[in-house]
Amino acid sequence: MVVPRLIERKRAGEALTSGEWRALVAGYTAGEVPDYQVSALLMAVMFRGLDPSELGALTQAMLDSGDRLSRPSGGPSRIDKHSTGGVGDKTSLILAPLLAACGVRVPMMSGRGLGHTGGTLDKLEAIPGFMTRMPLIDAARQLDAIGVVMFGQTDEIVPADRKLYALRDVTGTVESIPLITASIMSKKLAEQLDGLVLDVKVGSGAFMPKLDDARTLARTMVDVGTQAGCRTVALLTAMDRPLGRTAGNAIEVVESIAALRGEAAGDLMEVTLALGAEMLMLAGKAVNRAEAVARLKATIRSGAALDKLREVVRWQGGDVAVIDDPSRLPAAPIVRKIRAGHNGRMPPLPPRALGEMVVAMGGGRRTAADEVDPAVGLEILPRVGQSVQGGEVVAVVHARTAADADVAETSLLRALDAAWQRHEQPLPLLLERITSEHSEPYGELQWDR
Amino acid sequence: MVVPRLIERKRAGEALTSGEWRALVAGYTAGEVPDYQVSALLMAVMFRGLDPSELGALTQAMLDSGDRLSRPSGGPSRIDKHSTGGVGDKTSLILAPLLAACGVRVPMMSGRGLGHTGGTLDKLEAIPGFMTRMPLIDAARQLDAIGVVMFGQTDEIVPADRKLYALRDVTGTVESIPLITASIMSKKLAEQLDGLVLDVKVGSGAFMPKLDDARTLARTMVDVGTQAGCRTVALLTAMDRPLGRTAGNAIEVVESIAALRGEAAGDLMEVTLALGAEMLMLAGKAVNRAEAVARLKATIRSGAALDKLREVVRWQGGDVAVIDDPSRLPAAPIVRKIRAGHNGRMPPLPPRALGEMVVAMGGGRRTAADEVDPAVGLEILPRVGQSVQGGEVVAVVHARTAADADVAETSLLRALDAAWQRHEQPLPLLLERITSEHSEPYGELQWDR
Repeated sequence: MVVPRLIERKRAGEALTSGEWRALVAGYTAGEVPDYQVSALLMAVMFRGLDPSELGALTQAMLDSGDRLSRPSGGPSRIDKHSTGGVGDKTSLILAPLLAACGVRVPMMSGRGLGHTGGTLDKLEAIPGFMTRMPLIDAARQLDAIGVVMFGQTDEIVPADRKLYALRDVTGTVESIPLITASIMSKKLAEQLDGLVLDVKVGSGAFMPKLDDARTLARTMVDVGTQAGCRTVALLTAMDRPLGRTAGNAIEVVESIAALRGEAAGDLMEVTLALGAEMLMLAGKAVNRAEAVARLKATIRSGAALDKLREVVRWQGGDVAVIDDPSRLPAAPIVRKIRAGHNGRMPPLPPRALGEMVVAMGGGRRTAADEVDPAVGLEILPRVGQSVQGGEVVAVVHARTAADADVAETSLLRALDAAWQRHEQPLPLLLERITSEHSEPYGELQWDR
Repeated sequence: MVVPRLIERKRAGEALTSGEWRALVAGYTAGEVPDYQVSALLMAVMFRGLDPSELGALTQAMLDSGDRLSRPSGGPSRIDKHSTGGVGDKTSLILAPLLAACGVRVPMMSGRGLGHTGGTLDKLEAIPGFMTRMPLIDAARQLDAIGVVMFGQTDEIVPADRKLYALRDVTGTVESIPLITASIMSKKLAEQLDGLVLDVKVGSGAFMPKLDDARTLARTMVDVGTQAGCRTVALLTAMDRPLGRTAGNAIEVVESIAALRGEAAGDLMEVTLALGAEMLMLAGKAVNRAEAVARLKATIRSGAALDKLREVVRWQGGDVAVIDDPSRLPAAPIVRKIRAGHNGRMPPLPPRALGEMVVAMGGGRRTAADEVDPAVGLEILPRVGQSVQGGEVVAVVHARTAADADVAETSLLRALDAAWQRHEQPLPLLLERITSEHSEPYGELQWDR
């Protein structure tokens, strides 16, 4: 392998062979191919893309750079869900115990928040004692024992991705659909899944704000998963406003527990049930959406889903008492109610701005090294479209200091006024469903009946 | 300066500012900006190019990374010639003393051969004792004293280029017209010239084989030179066959000495006089081509040009006796005459193949670390288009071993047969003349009258 010749061929728009991608990734992971050649190659990929067989080969080579989550032969279906990230997106916290309670094995390997989007691991760690770092062998054991594990990517899984991602981050080569796909899918395939549901966000708070880009990313990920033998379905869902009523860490745990109690409603439950229904269908535990939704709701109603969360928290060292007494979660000293200045209909609030308010209060990360304060965050009370009276409490700020709360209050009221003046139509919450065979408008979920 | 943001902007097709290019080059030269960021940026430049002001800024920033050849105020015009490289291209060896003998200051800073093309320094070093490494201050002193110096790029000159070129070589980012231009022109501008004549080769043995690409390169270099205050003219000349009768090192010195004696003819003299005429006109020592050519020929005829070469060899530590007795140059033990298999007209022989035969015999470099054997090489006796009889000696191989000569003989006869069968029309030797104002067909040189 003469690396400069491979770079030149990719630069000229040629496809590299599977063997060449394998040698490149193995050589890079082993430290034999230097960063400066890989960054030049990645930049050529930004311009030339990867054809489907190259993308499959790259994903496989990355997957092969590390260990997989071991898997007994036979047994229940193993299904995961992955979201491209958003503000207030806590569906993983609800879906993992919910689907496990339905008899699906859910190896929920998640990440941390960065920038304006939150991360599942940070939210879970708001529960006192909850541990998300564990060796793969322990994750596999827990998955076998209770059907669900919620853990962080370890050094054993796809080391090539960690190295490549760090390089892309400093060389202007992040926003490439094939490179994003290989990064996400290599990690998901390391879980040895039967099926995967992708929640690809669309709108101003999404990683890929434009519908066309999000659709291309979803289609690309679905094709790579399917080609690798993992049945993959993607839903395009709205991220032109936060999902649910909370954005933060402890307060998102509170909202997730409420959802598992059957006490949540609105957008959050709609997206959660839509994703959960796909997971259940992939697991062969429901033949259609209506049956799947009914089963999910029954599992919540029975208390089995909440019990499964209790089990997860116990297994992972967390304080189980928080589930019945959320006041045991870290709480912010300042809780400030924000009131609407006048009457109106609740507009979609820009998720990026809200996410950045949470980061500014200490609830997120600007760089990967930042510490996260689990207690701070925002609650947005009215649902988009709901009518609001002047003087009505529309939001609650949870802050460390009065000064932080002042800043957040000002930003929030400004964002609300600006949104009111924009008169923007919110995106439909569930936009499209993309499978290996076709794409279709999502249609009705009918979950409320 | 946040380098990833600059890379992203270049990737998106934006122009970076002069200050940004300056900071990038300074940071890279100082080791503060890492290779992996620069290689990604260079790859983005491969796709997006550089606009004229970016290219000017990059060239200037590279120039500013090192020292310049000092220059007294006033005094005779300082003019150099640069070739993009070819096989048998020995015009530098002839032009440097010839123009100096005409009263022009010629600071001929040259490179070594790599791949199929030869290098002026390697040829000069075939003269026993001749030294091409010297500090800039010594080069300036010799230039003042005798009007000409023929030396290699030192560490003092454009260190940014050495570092960038080494990186480009291993990251598939060599063939970019703006990057090539900045590399060549930053070094030439460090000579503090009044004028520069560029010999841009066209044809299968050239770095840019296609006429359009060569023309774009020439136009780009002329514009950068002119913008930087150095009057620059480019000639596009043919490299679809070797230039002159010899390819090697010592044997090219022999041919160059013959040319300075007035004993050479054909393509070599035509290109040499065309380039020399441009140099003389830039120096203000001739008002038109006919006058310039006449002056160059008179200077050869008078012996002044050959005397100037003697002076150069003496100043640079070489054996001056070789000039009157070329048998003192290194000679190969095997001298094999190659005879034509049948009658025909001499076709243009492919320079790349011939250059590679010389490399295979040890007369060139595959990698920069290879040693060069000055004695080996090829002579091609008939001029293109000349009629050849079967059995007539058409070439002479100078080799280290009979086995090497066998290989070269076979390759040469095969190349000759293939060329005969292709019935290719040779390119006109002098194709175009490109100045800052316009491009024009070269027209007639009329040097033989």
